[in-house]
Amino acid sequence: MTDQKSALVVSAHSADFVWRCGGAIALHQKQGYDVTVVCLSYGERGESAKLWKQDGMTLERVKTERRIEAETAAAALHVHDIQFFDLGDYPLELTRDDKYKLVDVIRAVQPDFMLSHSKIDPYNTDHAYATQVALECRMIAQAWGHNPGQKVLGAPQLYLFEPHQTEQMAWKPDTFLDITPVWDQKRAAIECMRGQEHLWEYYTRVAQQRANHFKRNSGGQSGGRDCKYAEGFQSVFPRTIDTL
Amino acid sequence: MTDQKSALVVSAHSADFVWRCGGAIALHQKQGYDVTVVCLSYGERGESAKLWKQDGMTLERVKTERRIEAETAAAALHVHDIQFFDLGDYPLELTRDDKYKLVDVIRAVQPDFMLSHSKIDPYNTDHAYATQVALECRMIAQAWGHNPGQKVLGAPQLYLFEPHQTEQMAWKPDTFLDITPVWDQKRAAIECMRGQEHLWEYYTRVAQQRANHFKRNSGGQSGGRDCKYAEGFQSVFPRTIDTL
Amino acid sequence: MTDQKSALVVSAHSADFVWRCGGAIALHQKQGYDVTVVCLSYGERGESAKLWKQDGMTLERVKTERRIEAETAAAALHVHDIQFFDLGDYPLELTRDDKYKLVDVIRAVQPDFMLSHSKIDPYNTDHAYATQVALECRMIAQAWGHNPGQKVLGAPQLYLFEPHQTEQMAWKPDTFLDITPVWDQKRAAIECMRGQEHLWEYYTRVAQQRANHFKRNSGGQSGGRDCKYAEGFQSVFPRTIDTL
Amino acid sequence: MTDQKSALVVSAHSADFVWRCGGAIALHQKQGYDVTVVCLSYGERGESAKLWKQDGMTLERVKTERRIEAETAAAALHVHDIQFFDLGDYPLELTRDDKYKLVDVIRAVQPDFMLSHSKIDPYNTDHAYATQVALECRMIAQAWGHNPGQKVLGAPQLYLFEPHQTEQMAWKPDTFLDITPVWDQKRAAIECMRGQEHLWEYYTRVAQQRANHFKRNSGGQSGGRDCKYAEGFQSVFPRTIDTL
Amino acid sequence: MTDQKSALVVSAHSADFVWRCGGAIALHQKQGYDVTVVCLSYGERGESAKLWKQDGMTLERVKTERRIEAETAAAALHVHDIQFFDLGDYPLELTRDDKYKLVDVIRAVQPDFMLSHSKIDPYNTDHAYATQVALECRMIAQAWGHNPGQKVLGAPQLYLFEPHQTEQMAWKPDTFLDITPVWDQKRAAIECMRGQEHLWEYYTRVAQQRANHFKRNSGGQSGGRDCKYAEGFQSVFPRTIDTL
Amino acid sequence: MTDQKSALVVSAHSADFVWRCGGAIALHQKQGYDVTVVCLSYGERGESAKLWKQDGMTLERVKTERRIEAETAAAALHVHDIQFFDLGDYPLELTRDDKYKLVDVIRAVQPDFMLSHSKIDPYNTDHAYATQVALECRMIAQAWGHNPGQKVLGAPQLYLFEPHQTEQMAWKPDTFLDITPVWDQKRAAIECMRGQEHLWEYYTRVAQQRANHFKRNSGGQSGGRDCKYAEGFQSVFPRTIDTL
Repeated sequence: MTDQKSALVVSAHSADFVWRCGGAIALHQKQGYDVTVVCLSYGERGESAKLWKQDGMTLERVKTERRIEAETAAAALHVHDIQFFDLGDYPLELTRDDKYKLVDVIRAVQPDFMLSHSKIDPYNTDHAYATQVALECRMIAQAWGHNPGQKVLGAPQLYLFEPHQTEQMAWKPDTFLDITPVWDQKRAAIECMRGQEHLWEYYTRVAQQRANHFKRNSGGQSGGRDCKYAEGFQSVFPRTIDTL
Repeated sequence: MTDQKSALVVSAHSADFVWRCGGAIALHQKQGYDVTVVCLSYGERGESAKLWKQDGMTLERVKTERRIEAETAAAALHVHDIQFFDLGDYPLELTRDDKYKLVDVIRAVQPDFMLSHSKIDPYNTDHAYATQVALECRMIAQAWGHNPGQKVLGAPQLYLFEPHQTEQMAWKPDTFLDITPVWDQKRAAIECMRGQEHLWEYYTRVAQQRANHFKRNSGGQSGGRDCKYAEGFQSVFPRTIDTL
Repeated sequence: MTDQKSALVVSAHSADFVWRCGGAIALHQKQGYDVTVVCLSYGERGESAKLWKQDGMTLERVKTERRIEAETAAAALHVHDIQFFDLGDYPLELTRDDKYKLVDVIRAVQPDFMLSHSKIDPYNTDHAYATQVALECRMIAQAWGHNPGQKVLGAPQLYLFEPHQTEQMAWKPDTFLDITPVWDQKRAAIECMRGQEHLWEYYTRVAQQRANHFKRNSGGQSGGRDCKYAEGFQSVFPRTIDTL
Repeated sequence: MTDQKSALVVSAHSADFVWRCGGAIALHQKQGYDVTVVCLSYGERGESAKLWKQDGMTLERVKTERRIEAETAAAALHVHDIQFFDLGDYPLELTRDDKYKLVDVIRAVQPDFMLSHSKIDPYNTDHAYATQVALECRMIAQAWGHNPGQKVLGAPQLYLFEPHQTEQMAWKPDTFLDITPVWDQKRAAIECMRGQEHLWEYYTRVAQQRANHFKRNSGGQSGGRDCKYAEGFQSVFPRTIDTL
Repeated sequence: MTDQKSALVVSAHSADFVWRCGGAIALHQKQGYDVTVVCLSYGERGESAKLWKQDGMTLERVKTERRIEAETAAAALHVHDIQFFDLGDYPLELTRDDKYKLVDVIRAVQPDFMLSHSKIDPYNTDHAYATQVALECRMIAQAWGHNPGQKVLGAPQLYLFEPHQTEQMAWKPDTFLDITPVWDQKRAAIECMRGQEHLWEYYTRVAQQRANHFKRNSGGQSGGRDCKYAEGFQSVFPRTIDTL
Repeated sequence: MTDQKSALVVSAHSADFVWRCGGAIALHQKQGYDVTVVCLSYGERGESAKLWKQDGMTLERVKTERRIEAETAAAALHVHDIQFFDLGDYPLELTRDDKYKLVDVIRAVQPDFMLSHSKIDPYNTDHAYATQVALECRMIAQAWGHNPGQKVLGAPQLYLFEPHQTEQMAWKPDTFLDITPVWDQKRAAIECMRGQEHLWEYYTRVAQQRANHFKRNSGGQSGGRDCKYAEGFQSVFPRTIDTL
């Protein structure tokens, strides 16, 4: 019931939010938003190869390491709140109760916008599943008959953040966000991902390429606003505006 | 080199701008934009059935009638400038010189955004052709080697306004604009189209349906900003922003 | 084993069949078809906002109200049979037994054609799910090894009726049905939906717009059969015919 | 102004109408339609390899041979009228006057439906171009201001007949036509194509496969109407009907 | 850890692998690959109409007959290993444990490439489901945290084999494989399918049509390698190569 | 009539071949192919902003500079032959004679594969036009009746090289080529583009990102062949092979 702006990230595995929308998180925190991150799993089985190559590794240790990494990265991004649902990965599966728990978070946050994965990902079925769940829970959160008396959800935009190998995922960005002011924070968060060091430079280059696209679309050869780092997003829903 | 905001509409036939973006025109004029409309043809052959059913009608008379209608409608919308290229319709065709003339207008206007037709229209090949020309001329206007010394164009958005039978045109709106404050002007402009009276109510209903969609996407059942009339648009290029 | 023509509507929530294919139902009943409607849920949680805003409302009361509304509307349309599966909504989920129950209905009805929702709906995952179930159960009903001895299903068309915000659902109508002769019945059925009065005029306008499209595609400016109200449908399967 | 039913085929090269819709032509002639075929070119350069391998072949001789083949095939199909525009192939190009000549034919025929190529063909740009021209000329034929006083065209369906390698052309049939009653005529017409004997069996198999699809979609395992030969078509425009 | 080449086929029902990739299987066996086939179900309910028409048929007898047919066909193709998961059909459903069993097979085989169904099939939801499962299990097999210590999977291509009515399944082949050298084996395997004799000639014609496409794409009119029988496949993932 | 392997690049503007397929060119030259590059224009008007910002610049001087740059880059890549058609840009347009000139080159080269732009490019209509021309001229080059007596073209693959902002161009790579062995040459060629220095690092990063994708698709976390620089391509036509 306040005017506090807020946003919600639904991340299939605990590192996704860093690579894919760490800039958006830090930037909106800086602008006064409260950004909540939900990690549906730790990516403990499928996205922790480096840890598993260590002798005597156990599932619990992997999860602990991944949680620490994610919390450290979240701190670097000044995340308002991070929640770990610990639902398991490869494959990720939610029961109806798991979904209701996510609905509870959505209603508590009342996000101005949500962020999740691309709709298609033949390499990683957890990603597309997380987005499907995000849409389903957004719908439930809008239902007046779900936990009557609670404040129902409005109609927040769902932005799909950038997947790996965008073209294979049929992901088309319609929005480029200038994250130059918070790049240092995103890079710091990226460097918390000690198990995936091979991706640090990769995602730095992604941000540089998207900055080029930002410039192209804000002026091209005749100028264009400068931008050193950017993130791209695809909108699921139409915008409602007063000026084109 | 001034801060005057401006927009440019590229209309295949002289009535298209009224039905499809009359609200956007009036609204932006009201907000201080200078909106220029280019009518590539009068739609004199293909979109003037009622006139042709009159005895002794000639091509010149049809064109004159259509021009008067368009000018009257433009006045109702407070259009800053309307230009008639008189290039013929059914089919519409532009020579290289015709395109350069449109480039001249684009450069003179330096639009913050452009408006044109859907990319596909199996019913009306002039429409898709006009959009193809708009993109081509936008590109030429950006070329430093075209009329060197002139101010080159930046990277304005091209919005595709709503076609008739949207689903057959593969047109998907990503933007709804609230035109309630200027609806009376749009309706007045629509009523200038005396030869197409059967469409007055049709396009009034379009605006009402889009208002429903505006509300759905700005809040849904839990509220949503009120809106009585709206227009929908599809963006060709990504947006570049600082806040999601 | 008779020549009685029949049709089957699979409706995710109890009001969907009214807005989306009430005309088709009434028209085919008038032509001698037996039309059966299956409401998988009452839409009691997600599509009954107005009821939930009343003090002391309970789930059972909402379901009762919704059932009465749907039955009254069905009567206005002269529906042959309406069945309520009461499977819950937001989200709708069917077990294997629930699916078999739907298969039983399909086999009993032996429909000449089926009707259900669009394949995609990011706003409402129940809708796309219902269509997926309709296709799955159509397949099971065709299996000779399912309840051997029962009459297996042939290959009825599945028509997808019109969703809200068609362009966002990637729904493209390939068929317009003239429902002018039964419009009064559809309007009466619509007015049974007392909880969604804000949609009465909306869906009346939908029918008027589709009538315009009917005329366009049956003759255009050179005539075209008159039509005041129509409904649009998208076919899933090819037609098999003797004359183009 | 009569009730005579009619159809028009727009064929890029002089043999296309035989392989792709010979059955539809013969069937509708049998049903009392007058079917007119327009061959925009003879396919003399690009689709006459066998002739060009003969010593001393000339362009004129190829055209003569191709015309004789087409006329003989047309006779086998009982084509009402066949016209050769002789516009050249590889590439096919139409001037505005060429298009107006096609418009004249369309208006004279007043077809109940039209037939042409797939919209996409990366192997053969003439094919997609012919369809684009067919749509453009259909539009011009509907224009009251084109040759005022002539009877304008209504809104005939445009069916896209089956291309070679359908999946590469993004061609999806929505209509299967049973051509069993006229198969002997189609086979006879096919055998008139002496320069392309390697395709006789190929297109016979196409008809057999489409018959299987006809059966699948008219009843499947539970029956399905028998059909030995069929042709597939994709509709460009929606249908307008009174019964689903 | 050897250099033995291998491939894995994931077949929803026990006959699918014969019609759709029997040639690829026999050819690669001949080239020294070990090809494993997993039949997720026998297709006992939905794809055994002929058996069910016999008096006194039982589910167990159908499964036995189908298994014998599949084993005989596999022998004709020299399949290295065929496994029957017996998970039921119409609808096919896999639990998490069933998926892990498939993952076990994938890891044991370490396939150089995998084969499964088209991604879409409105006629048969088991098919698309099998492909979704194949992608999901491929992902799990790549996870270092799944059964740590086992050899994880690399990144094998997943080829989608040819469905019935390709255009309705949005299946687009990007690869044609010449199976002429093993055609006799495929035909022999096809003839093992005694319950579906109506499809023998159908799939022989499919192979002949694909051979025509093979020739078209390997040289066209100017030559093209001869090929009498071929199979088509759609690749899910990009290729990685050293020469275009 | 020799066994000399060859390839042909159709480049809309004189620098496109460097950024987009410089690696493929150098690599195939190294493997013994003769690679011919056709620059349809110099990009003198639209892609030479830096030159036009110099005082007293003329169209001829820009063209000369651009030609020198392209020739120097071609030398760095060991291009076999580079031809400048000098047809003008922004917009690029080819007459029938211009097309025949390109057909002459195609027939002289008899390429094993061709390379050109993406099919769609809303930013730059010259690019899509060049690809359309490449397909059209490929077709003409296959026609036995075009310059009878010349050797006709077979059926070479057309690869679409990587555009700027791939997702906006609906470009989806299906092939990644390891260009690590020739990266130094590509970088040297890139540095010849003195007027577009802002793109040197951009396209170096593109090659690094594509190398990551190469690795992902050749083994992923379980290994994957090392690769430091790669290029991506989309195939227009199916492949014809003997082993999957």
